Amino acid sequence: MERATKKTLVPFFEPRSVAIIGASATPGKAGYEAVRNVLANGYAGTIHLVNPKGGEILGLPVTPAISALPGGVDLAVVILPAEATPKALRECAAKGIRHAALMAGGFAEVDESGAQIQQELTEIIRETGIRVLGPNISGHTSTPHAYTSAFFPLGKIRRGRVSVIAQTGNFATHTMKYILSGEHFGVCRVIGLGNKVDIDETEALEYLADDPETTAIVIYLESFKRPRRFLEVAREVTRRKPVVMLKSGSTQAGQQAAVAHTAAMAAEDRLVDGMLRQAGIVRVAEYTHLVLAAKAFSMLPLPRGNRVSFLAPSGAMLVAYTDLCVRLGLEVPAVTPATVRRLQAISPPYIRMRNPVDIWAAATVSGVEFAYREGMEAVLKDPNIDAVVPVLMLARDIGVPPFDFILELAKRYPEKPVLVTFSSEKDCMEECKAYLEPRGVPTFPEIEQPFEVLSILARCARAMSRPR
Amino acid sequence: MERATKKTLVPFFEPRSVAIIGASATPGKAGYEAVRNVLANGYAGTIHLVNPKGGEILGLPVTPAISALPGGVDLAVVILPAEATPKALRECAAKGIRHAALMAGGFAEVDESGAQIQQELTEIIRETGIRVLGPNISGHTSTPHAYTSAFFPLGKIRRGRVSVIAQTGNFATHTMKYILSGEHFGVCRVIGLGNKVDIDETEALEYLADDPETTAIVIYLESFKRPRRFLEVAREVTRRKPVVMLKSGSTQAGQQAAVAHTAAMAAEDRLVDGMLRQAGIVRVAEYTHLVLAAKAFSMLPLPRGNRVSFLAPSGAMLVAYTDLCVRLGLEVPAVTPATVRRLQAISPPYIRMRNPVDIWAAATVSGVEFAYREGMEAVLKDPNIDAVVPVLMLARDIGVPPFDFILELAKRYPEKPVLVTFSSEKDCMEECKAYLEPRGVPTFPEIEQPFEVLSILARCARAMSRPR
Repeated sequence: MERATKKTLVPFFEPRSVAIIGASATPGKAGYEAVRNVLANGYAGTIHLVNPKGGEILGLPVTPAISALPGGVDLAVVILPAEATPKALRECAAKGIRHAALMAGGFAEVDESGAQIQQELTEIIRETGIRVLGPNISGHTSTPHAYTSAFFPLGKIRRGRVSVIAQTGNFATHTMKYILSGEHFGVCRVIGLGNKVDIDETEALEYLADDPETTAIVIYLESFKRPRRFLEVAREVTRRKPVVMLKSGSTQAGQQAAVAHTAAMAAEDRLVDGMLRQAGIVRVAEYTHLVLAAKAFSMLPLPRGNRVSFLAPSGAMLVAYTDLCVRLGLEVPAVTPATVRRLQAISPPYIRMRNPVDIWAAATVSGVEFAYREGMEAVLKDPNIDAVVPVLMLARDIGVPPFDFILELAKRYPEKPVLVTFSSEKDCMEECKAYLEPRGVPTFPEIEQPFEVLSILARCARAMSRPR
Repeated sequence: MERATKKTLVPFFEPRSVAIIGASATPGKAGYEAVRNVLANGYAGTIHLVNPKGGEILGLPVTPAISALPGGVDLAVVILPAEATPKALRECAAKGIRHAALMAGGFAEVDESGAQIQQELTEIIRETGIRVLGPNISGHTSTPHAYTSAFFPLGKIRRGRVSVIAQTGNFATHTMKYILSGEHFGVCRVIGLGNKVDIDETEALEYLADDPETTAIVIYLESFKRPRRFLEVAREVTRRKPVVMLKSGSTQAGQQAAVAHTAAMAAEDRLVDGMLRQAGIVRVAEYTHLVLAAKAFSMLPLPRGNRVSFLAPSGAMLVAYTDLCVRLGLEVPAVTPATVRRLQAISPPYIRMRNPVDIWAAATVSGVEFAYREGMEAVLKDPNIDAVVPVLMLARDIGVPPFDFILELAKRYPEKPVLVTFSSEKDCMEECKAYLEPRGVPTFPEIEQPFEVLSILARCARAMSRPR
């Protein structure tokens, strides 16, 4: 099964020409939205549309049959029902097309007859050597090539440097829609795996390992197809690029499971835990953390270590978030005497300045901007600190400072992640996010999130530098 | 120390007249913002302002000295520096004022000389019997009486049925500002404890226990003043009202602690854990969860048990969130055959409908509104289900349904909490929140939150019905 993966997968992500089999003229249908997406993304290759009705869709001519396509098509995107998919795949192979993404669901994930159709796909792949992504995917995306096969209405997909492997249709659909509408980061490659009749998580990971456009990898996985080989590949990749995974621990079948079964699953899950850790993959437990990790990788350097400083407008926060840091495996270390002096210089004497930094008295005396700037710079300069979290207290009535100083500081200390969070009036938070994030500094609406994210980043950094 | 607490604390929350000592004519100063807040809240009692400069502030006449106040003032709010506070307190007592809230910081929390000033307060309290909230608080609030002593610019504070005890200035300041600007629920009483020179968490809890306006209690606490008595009171209250607490487990002094010290603290923290559980208090670990719990108590009934049904637009979510439920102590049980039939009737046959509910195929076939309405009603009716979480997939391009059906269902099954979350385009989430929340159905931007909240609610319900 070992093949020259890199070469093999390139045409999926850098196709010179694609054929959309099952293109549709009906807005709302997958076969229409897929065409709309590929146009919205400004794909520069040749687009062929195939539909027996012929005619024109969104200004593009429609070819009535696969057999009528010209030669040299790099990639076929098949948007047909399960029953019609094998025949189309065979025709694509016959036409000399070497790569296909199969969108339909209704295969082995559904019932026995679906499993039989899937078996047919396997046979066609074996006979013809055509490489297949799917079936049962919601598309794949390659922003460096301005290309997507996604059929969920997305519009232009923002380019980024984080790639995603997803054994779920979520990512290329609603999660992507959320990212595009609610966040300011983009993605590089998104690889839907679906039923993995051919290409699996291992090949996807191998491809991304050597993809110069990809600097970090985020994975949602429900099952391993070739666990041993996957871990072998992962062990190597994770020394060069951070890899974060949400591995679902239970199965759908397990949901009505008896206690004994649940216990067995828990044991198996601990095994997976250990294997992933050994392979340098950082496992997360929440779907939201996958998105937050992608956001962090898009905007931040990895910290050198797990030593955090945070500046908060209340003593209670200092205590509560130090607790949180400890639970998350982060340190909140003492800063140097020089840093303490610099902090003390901006504060009334009745606040004993140290790490974490009790910033509000200083802000009251010298203004919000001055206090946070001086405080942040003091801890950013400190050799004991790897990352800094300012907890901003913003309210119209007390005056909202310009946020440039945060950008400037983040730029001046490029090796130290700066993650902004809030205890603020809602619209001030939104304003700060809208200003900072397009300029590269991430913000997090919930005060626990930067610490959760830093914990993930610090674990990635540790994995990358682990001894051989 | 046992006093007739209820009677004693009533004037703090239902003052017929108040005197603001240290009222200021300078916008931005605490003594000005406190006056502005009390006016903005429509307080109907008499407001006296005291400042040696006399004159007028925000249209109200200013009395130059405490001694010049008329008799019969219920409550004094002292907004003076620490050094000036004891003298003012003594003058209030001399004037016959029996209740005072002391705002200034700079006492025992700061240094030895502050501790001495605080000792003076203790002596005045002992000598005169005046009851004191604070010092070092950011105010207290009583929306049923349209009253607040808060000095952070807040404007009108939304009325609600959840009360808060906070050993931190956070709550009455930025957290309240966030709630007022970003959420749709309100509060009942907010009690800042500060340095607890007189009134402590136990008295506050006793007052709220019998307060007919308070239906649930949320507490942030760093230390217990009288742990034994507190737990005694808590054991009784928690059978009638849910009580949720964030108890900071570490101390500021412990932040530079050695490993051994940390271990000792962890052991002590486990002790606190056990004591709180025995007393029926539900402990949470994140500040955000305090706010979410307050939101949930404001809008939802307590569930009868921990059995959840959720409807999600993706198989991956079914797996990942079943995992999450199990981790949180929630069950995702099988539904009855009748429910399964009803669910199956709205879905294409290739989806095997059960709990959790894979709703997207049904939505594709029959429309988002119909599928979610039918699906939600099926599981709401089911005797095996205590609470329902619809995960809404909303995007402009696929059509956003009206949200009335969710309100109708929530009203038709008033004993079952309905918590809405999303996998959606950002502005659709905001639109849904803006529609549902003022009408009583809570939404949560992050998909893990409704499950985290339900876990808290289910633990509260269990605590309330625990055997004696």
